[in-house]
Amino acid sequence: MSDDKRRTAEPSDLERSSGRQDWRTWPRYQAAAKGFRNYWYPVMWSRDLRRPTQVTLLGSRIMLHRSQGTVYALHDRCPHRGVPLSYGTEEFPGTISCPYHGWTYELATGNLCAVITDGPDSPIRGRVRVPTYPVAERFGLIWVFVGDQEPPPLAADLPEELVEFEPQLVGGRINAGRVGDWRLAAENGFDEGHAKYLHRGAPWVTFRQMPVWTRTRVVRDEREVWLTRVQDETHWDEHFPGLGDWSMKRWWKRRNGLADVLPGHYRDPAIESMKLPGRVAIRMPGLLRVAYDNFLHYEWYVPEDEHHHRYVQLGVSFSTGLRAADFWLRYWLVIRPFFHGHFTGQDSWMVSVMEAPPERLYRPDASITEWRRMCEQEPRNRDREGGS
Amino acid sequence: MSDDKRRTAEPSDLERSSGRQDWRTWPRYQAAAKGFRNYWYPVMWSRDLRRPTQVTLLGSRIMLHRSQGTVYALHDRCPHRGVPLSYGTEEFPGTISCPYHGWTYELATGNLCAVITDGPDSPIRGRVRVPTYPVAERFGLIWVFVGDQEPPPLAADLPEELVEFEPQLVGGRINAGRVGDWRLAAENGFDEGHAKYLHRGAPWVTFRQMPVWTRTRVVRDEREVWLTRVQDETHWDEHFPGLGDWSMKRWWKRRNGLADVLPGHYRDPAIESMKLPGRVAIRMPGLLRVAYDNFLHYEWYVPEDEHHHRYVQLGVSFSTGLRAADFWLRYWLVIRPFFHGHFTGQDSWMVSVMEAPPERLYRPDASITEWRRMCEQEPRNRDREGGS
Amino acid sequence: MSDDKRRTAEPSDLERSSGRQDWRTWPRYQAAAKGFRNYWYPVMWSRDLRRPTQVTLLGSRIMLHRSQGTVYALHDRCPHRGVPLSYGTEEFPGTISCPYHGWTYELATGNLCAVITDGPDSPIRGRVRVPTYPVAERFGLIWVFVGDQEPPPLAADLPEELVEFEPQLVGGRINAGRVGDWRLAAENGFDEGHAKYLHRGAPWVTFRQMPVWTRTRVVRDEREVWLTRVQDETHWDEHFPGLGDWSMKRWWKRRNGLADVLPGHYRDPAIESMKLPGRVAIRMPGLLRVAYDNFLHYEWYVPEDEHHHRYVQLGVSFSTGLRAADFWLRYWLVIRPFFHGHFTGQDSWMVSVMEAPPERLYRPDASITEWRRMCEQEPRNRDREGGS
Repeated sequence: MSDDKRRTAEPSDLERSSGRQDWRTWPRYQAAAKGFRNYWYPVMWSRDLRRPTQVTLLGSRIMLHRSQGTVYALHDRCPHRGVPLSYGTEEFPGTISCPYHGWTYELATGNLCAVITDGPDSPIRGRVRVPTYPVAERFGLIWVFVGDQEPPPLAADLPEELVEFEPQLVGGRINAGRVGDWRLAAENGFDEGHAKYLHRGAPWVTFRQMPVWTRTRVVRDEREVWLTRVQDETHWDEHFPGLGDWSMKRWWKRRNGLADVLPGHYRDPAIESMKLPGRVAIRMPGLLRVAYDNFLHYEWYVPEDEHHHRYVQLGVSFSTGLRAADFWLRYWLVIRPFFHGHFTGQDSWMVSVMEAPPERLYRPDASITEWRRMCEQEPRNRDREGGS
Repeated sequence: MSDDKRRTAEPSDLERSSGRQDWRTWPRYQAAAKGFRNYWYPVMWSRDLRRPTQVTLLGSRIMLHRSQGTVYALHDRCPHRGVPLSYGTEEFPGTISCPYHGWTYELATGNLCAVITDGPDSPIRGRVRVPTYPVAERFGLIWVFVGDQEPPPLAADLPEELVEFEPQLVGGRINAGRVGDWRLAAENGFDEGHAKYLHRGAPWVTFRQMPVWTRTRVVRDEREVWLTRVQDETHWDEHFPGLGDWSMKRWWKRRNGLADVLPGHYRDPAIESMKLPGRVAIRMPGLLRVAYDNFLHYEWYVPEDEHHHRYVQLGVSFSTGLRAADFWLRYWLVIRPFFHGHFTGQDSWMVSVMEAPPERLYRPDASITEWRRMCEQEPRNRDREGGS
Repeated sequence: MSDDKRRTAEPSDLERSSGRQDWRTWPRYQAAAKGFRNYWYPVMWSRDLRRPTQVTLLGSRIMLHRSQGTVYALHDRCPHRGVPLSYGTEEFPGTISCPYHGWTYELATGNLCAVITDGPDSPIRGRVRVPTYPVAERFGLIWVFVGDQEPPPLAADLPEELVEFEPQLVGGRINAGRVGDWRLAAENGFDEGHAKYLHRGAPWVTFRQMPVWTRTRVVRDEREVWLTRVQDETHWDEHFPGLGDWSMKRWWKRRNGLADVLPGHYRDPAIESMKLPGRVAIRMPGLLRVAYDNFLHYEWYVPEDEHHHRYVQLGVSFSTGLRAADFWLRYWLVIRPFFHGHFTGQDSWMVSVMEAPPERLYRPDASITEWRRMCEQEPRNRDREGGS
């Protein structure tokens, strides 16, 4: 049955669909199936890089390798005969040798500095270069800049609050090869409408009553970095004429979850001091932030190819001491299994089965169209033809 | 080895094949790879529909769902973002809600009657419609009409004998996703030549001697509904000059199987009264009937996509009382494992490995070409361009 | 991770690669993705042919079947409805009958000599023919000639030393469906550069020191049949300025392996008398020879389709008596697991992951370009358009 569902729908069926047939209204967004270049993307945990490793980013295969403490990123293809360098060996410090013929590249520059099987006078030495990618490490993560411009400092692509305040604990999960276009993943993340219905039965919201619907505005901050959803109205139960009543009101659920119930509920002063205009916000190049009282959740939709993305979820706490220990416990016992596991797993399911366009948008999708508009105005690829 | 066999043959090899390269002689048949629209097709057992279920018919994904006793069929795609409705829930009686945002459709009409996450005043309410399909239930089966015309009564697409006489017991097997174009399956079913050779060793015919070859005519009934194979000559053993003798004569086999041997062999008077002109007959839109002395076998080749069909086999008895009990026992002990299992499994094997066209037809294939001619004259899609 | 590596590289990435983008300099070689026709190819062990068997050669599916001691090869497709004949049965001596309708072909000619299900007077009898392929057996192998010309004697496509001297023992391994274009496999085999680096740690060379690099010429014999690599210089350890020293010198390794160490090392006089100009040689249509002191290794890259080849490895000894027993023991205990298993398995790995063109050749690749030049001059398909 589930196999059935993955069969491509009939073109004739899709064409018959009413609504928007493509995204030509947002041409640069439409062209960006493999992501926006010239941004820093988080890729993997620093601690997991133990040998040359291949990752796919924005359609390119990239080898990551740590040498003498520093991480390097090279295009993962030896120009000689097309063998992945990530199968190779660091024969000389600061280099990688292709496993096939020992073509040896300087990790820092990508320059072919020796060819073992052609001797020290090999004429090709110094005449071949493998593209390299800027790399940074921060918060226990390896970040790669994919693009053709001089990279800005990593901080330019970090949430500013992570630069200003010092994260004390960073937990998270990274899933490579998550099925679906990164844009569908990002739209799902910032999508105003779905959380209340798709996630209504998730254990993560066991004690939190979800609203039926809300009236929402999307606001840009003055630096034009974040789009934030702001609720103007929240409806907790509702009557649908001719159909019946609908609400997620249950005797064990509270509108603010356990915050108003549990004694000593902690609000992190760092997070309070950020004065975020709303709980959920998104920014370039595909980074969502959800603010909780005592931790911040981030998720990046890192483009791999047109059909897959790398899903990077973080939970960040600014607490120290006992409060940090408390967060650490809650992260492993509750947040990781129920939020970073089950809850966002429901999103993964939708992202993998949805097919859009064609699409027929509705009122709450203003959150999606505002995001597309932000992508359309994305500054770093503006002078290039196409968005990617 | 079997993997080897599935590799596509060389185009150059095929082009070199003598014989017919395509079916352009039968243009509407050639165009009907996904089936003929505007017919009723049997799809699944009524008792198996316990929750929203996806099926693929004639290239379309369709959700079947039973609500308050009635079965409904909707195109299985929410126009909002393309999520299958069959993953959804019946939130209000007589409706289905998409699992993603709670877009809620009336099962009977496909009209968007509410959007839970946009409140009762949602402006899109009433402005979106999902295509629906006519559904019927009969003989314990769910039937769906796929097309763009006003559907005829279900009886128009049933074998008339099932309308006139009351089936008492209906056993059967339904296999979704059987590999192969529905046309190759139908041709295999009505194919005069293969049964005698392909099935010669099947347990189902242990006690029945298969002929070597027959001279066969194909006749249409006067209503032009059924094509029936009629044997004018039957050869039970044969000498092939230069090669040798060939027959399936064995001491334990009889030309009429066990009918003349077992005392009290029963001939069903209802079936006798039908005065069928021959044992094996076929009709639109891909329904084969094989008449046995005391039950009728039917098989439908229900098109799914160009490469798969749903194979619906029925065994129908008109007996009552003890005779019905006897049929029930024989169905489960003999007919189901040896006929609906092994014997037609040999057909499944051939349908999955054959590649035609190109093809080189022979004398007994008149049964196939007559069937193609009947499809060519098929009345319900005549005014449309193409057959599907 | 390994899945990641199989994803197709970005076209844009590849286009950006410097070096040669395609093989248009060698047009007939470039066109020969499915192999060169009009040659004899070894296919399988004679002893393994126990029933009708399908193999794929040069893009064609071929049935091999032994009848009354003789092996026959037919195009593995019944022209009637495209069913593989290799599923069939030898109903009459010297024939094969298609499993579907009993179309019966003479194995020697491919002529349709009877159709069981249409009787002895079947009008189609004698009017259909399945293509046949010349077959030979030698050295315990079945050889098939694929082409459109009158085949030369098998000996024309055998290494001449196997015709002149009588092989006493032939061991070997045949792998069907090895991943990769046969040309990449052949180039890997004759490739001067890789052995010293890729295989440096293989158990097969435990006691043999590999050089760092060599200066090599490629010579053609006067009959223009074999290309042989000849080392003019061999460098056993080397300093790479700015990087360090590199050598495979280890206390337990010798430049000639165990030959100079083990008492009584045997040099086969037959092999010595061949006066081969070098250890490694290649010839049409894709046959590599590696000469050891007391056995010859051969490997054929038999094209299957554009992406797979059949890898046929032989170890041939000319010794008799005790020396033959010694070779037999060494073949099964050492050569087969460590050479025909692990060592050439490293080659299989490279052939399956390399992507060329695009490519950037280096000095030792003269061995590859000479081989391409030989293919370009290949005589048997010269008058045809394209090389295959």
